[in-house]
Amino acid sequence: MKEPGIITLLTDFGLHEPYVGVMKGVILGICPEACIVDLTHQVEAREVMEANFALHGAFPYFPAGTIHVVVVDPGVGSSRRILCARSRGMTFLAPDNGVLTGVFQPGDEIRAVTNGRMFLGGPISHTFHGRDIFAPVAARLLAGARFADVGGPVSDPVTLDLPQPVRQRSGSLMGTIIHIDQFGNLISNIRKHDVEALPENARVVSFRGQEIGRLVESYASVERGAPLAIVDSFGFLEIAVNSGSAAKHFNGARGDPLHLGLRCE
Amino acid sequence: MKEPGIITLLTDFGLHEPYVGVMKGVILGICPEACIVDLTHQVEAREVMEANFALHGAFPYFPAGTIHVVVVDPGVGSSRRILCARSRGMTFLAPDNGVLTGVFQPGDEIRAVTNGRMFLGGPISHTFHGRDIFAPVAARLLAGARFADVGGPVSDPVTLDLPQPVRQRSGSLMGTIIHIDQFGNLISNIRKHDVEALPENARVVSFRGQEIGRLVESYASVERGAPLAIVDSFGFLEIAVNSGSAAKHFNGARGDPLHLGLRCE
Amino acid sequence: MKEPGIITLLTDFGLHEPYVGVMKGVILGICPEACIVDLTHQVEAREVMEANFALHGAFPYFPAGTIHVVVVDPGVGSSRRILCARSRGMTFLAPDNGVLTGVFQPGDEIRAVTNGRMFLGGPISHTFHGRDIFAPVAARLLAGARFADVGGPVSDPVTLDLPQPVRQRSGSLMGTIIHIDQFGNLISNIRKHDVEALPENARVVSFRGQEIGRLVESYASVERGAPLAIVDSFGFLEIAVNSGSAAKHFNGARGDPLHLGLRCE
Repeated sequence: MKEPGIITLLTDFGLHEPYVGVMKGVILGICPEACIVDLTHQVEAREVMEANFALHGAFPYFPAGTIHVVVVDPGVGSSRRILCARSRGMTFLAPDNGVLTGVFQPGDEIRAVTNGRMFLGGPISHTFHGRDIFAPVAARLLAGARFADVGGPVSDPVTLDLPQPVRQRSGSLMGTIIHIDQFGNLISNIRKHDVEALPENARVVSFRGQEIGRLVESYASVERGAPLAIVDSFGFLEIAVNSGSAAKHFNGARGDPLHLGLRCE
Repeated sequence: MKEPGIITLLTDFGLHEPYVGVMKGVILGICPEACIVDLTHQVEAREVMEANFALHGAFPYFPAGTIHVVVVDPGVGSSRRILCARSRGMTFLAPDNGVLTGVFQPGDEIRAVTNGRMFLGGPISHTFHGRDIFAPVAARLLAGARFADVGGPVSDPVTLDLPQPVRQRSGSLMGTIIHIDQFGNLISNIRKHDVEALPENARVVSFRGQEIGRLVESYASVERGAPLAIVDSFGFLEIAVNSGSAAKHFNGARGDPLHLGLRCE
Repeated sequence: MKEPGIITLLTDFGLHEPYVGVMKGVILGICPEACIVDLTHQVEAREVMEANFALHGAFPYFPAGTIHVVVVDPGVGSSRRILCARSRGMTFLAPDNGVLTGVFQPGDEIRAVTNGRMFLGGPISHTFHGRDIFAPVAARLLAGARFADVGGPVSDPVTLDLPQPVRQRSGSLMGTIIHIDQFGNLISNIRKHDVEALPENARVVSFRGQEIGRLVESYASVERGAPLAIVDSFGFLEIAVNSGSAAKHFNGARGDPLHLGLRCE
């Protein structure tokens, strides 16, 4: 028996309305053996950058053949394209608004979804492409439709201009808080390899005028309520508070700068 | 291999407690191959009208044979009946409180669920029929139990007295906001066919003393932050704000009237 | 065909981040036919007692062979053990912090999870064992790995010191509110058998200086808005308000005492 394939869903639809359930009904009507996994539906409304961050962290943990569907789509009904991309053995379906920035790499095949025969039967709404286009196209691809049939190739997908850490003359790095998670952890754009490029005694984090100190290996390495800096499980340098919220502790916000390196430099 | 059938769940249980998970455990214990889809569990507590609205929009997108289970049930443990209805090739299981109003059509077969042998074994609680009656009955029906075995026929199901748009002498319509969604969109009870029955130049929407203007085709048809009127993807006339919340913009509430037609009439 | 087995997930990860989705990706990559059921992901952060309460109520409704995974784990990355327990025909995987208190019974087999070959390939993070250890170990067990292979036996699992009702000289009971649910119901630690041990005329509940009266059989037994006491569907004595919130009505909180017995005693 062929193993069922996976379709993941990542939207800003929330869970109060049955919109996500409707997408699943459409998918299962076309491909009854689909295994549907929710990534999250609580991306802040129209926050393409947040959706890109969530997808970028999550997709590598799915098996080859998974189809990832992203519907964070402030331009729904406008002339924005819908993209279908093949990258690293998986398929990605998303509006062409930069939400796949963290996925794309050289050599990816990208197409614009235009083949109306793959859409839901009947008139296509201008406000719910998740139901009328994304869900049925994903289901047909999982059921065996050819990637090349979705539409013609695209060579100029929209990508986000994400903030990058800035290396200073001293060798230290100025990074930026790019995400605040459920626990109030402040996640920066400084990556594990950036940290490891510094000499060990220079791996010191400062934030909001406070020196947080050397990187630790686990939240429990400091006392309860104490702040810490750590490379998180997705490879980002993060500021946290053991058994607490760094966002509250520091009154931190997305966009805040943080410093990695010796202060005196 | 027989394809697994679908059971959908629509409740006001929220997601903080494991109540929905418990229902799924009961279903899978009886029918391990059931494919369970959440419609929503965040209907406001005991809001039968909201549950009816959610179900009415969602159920048509599921394949024939789907069993829809609704547990928004303020009368649990009282003498209210539990209904099992067959309509349009699907099965609906819900308390007899009007929550199936948007589903029923002439010719539907409706029965009262009374056959205790289809319930969960052991004593039946008076407070969680979702677990003790709805889940096991749905699972047994999916696993092949006969519809006629649930209990005797019902000819007088409770239905909600939903507000209807009022046609005025001038031909214009006074509608009512019946739902506010996740994005702050204000959804009215005026339907697509009501709109299309008016001459095109009279399809003008006013709300809270403001003329919103002609209907548009997509949110992006107006500037960011500007209000608009649109027939939404479920066929309801809706007031929205491009990339914003109409509920906040207008301080709108359920029950608010809106006007479709020429103002000067 | 072998029926797919069930893995349940109970965490404090919330639904804003894709953490739960990532765990599902890992599970399905190892065991594609796994049937994954969410118990809840909205346990208050690091609230081991709440997680124990949720699990204790939910697990008995799942079929034999189910694997229950609990990741409410304030000690992640510390030296706390991870336990794998076999109890009542099911398997439980959880940090050794007391979260399985309501599950354990004499004769259970308990092991510490230490076999790195069952973990996710690559370096193991110190902050997301849900992804790197719990998910892959659960998936491998479901796919047929031997329980004994997870690691060596444990005889001293951590258990919570849960508050017990206190019997007074008069025979009446002083209980404690141990949980407040989604509907604002106040759930106590007094169990059905405690209630039934009292003579019927002494089954009178008082809370916050108010006599709520005899136990009723359903919420609808009292007028809308009126308080009531009832043995809930999980066998706990609970204080509720018909169509309302007892938590608001009484300004009740976890830890509040309640009295079961005749006042004059």
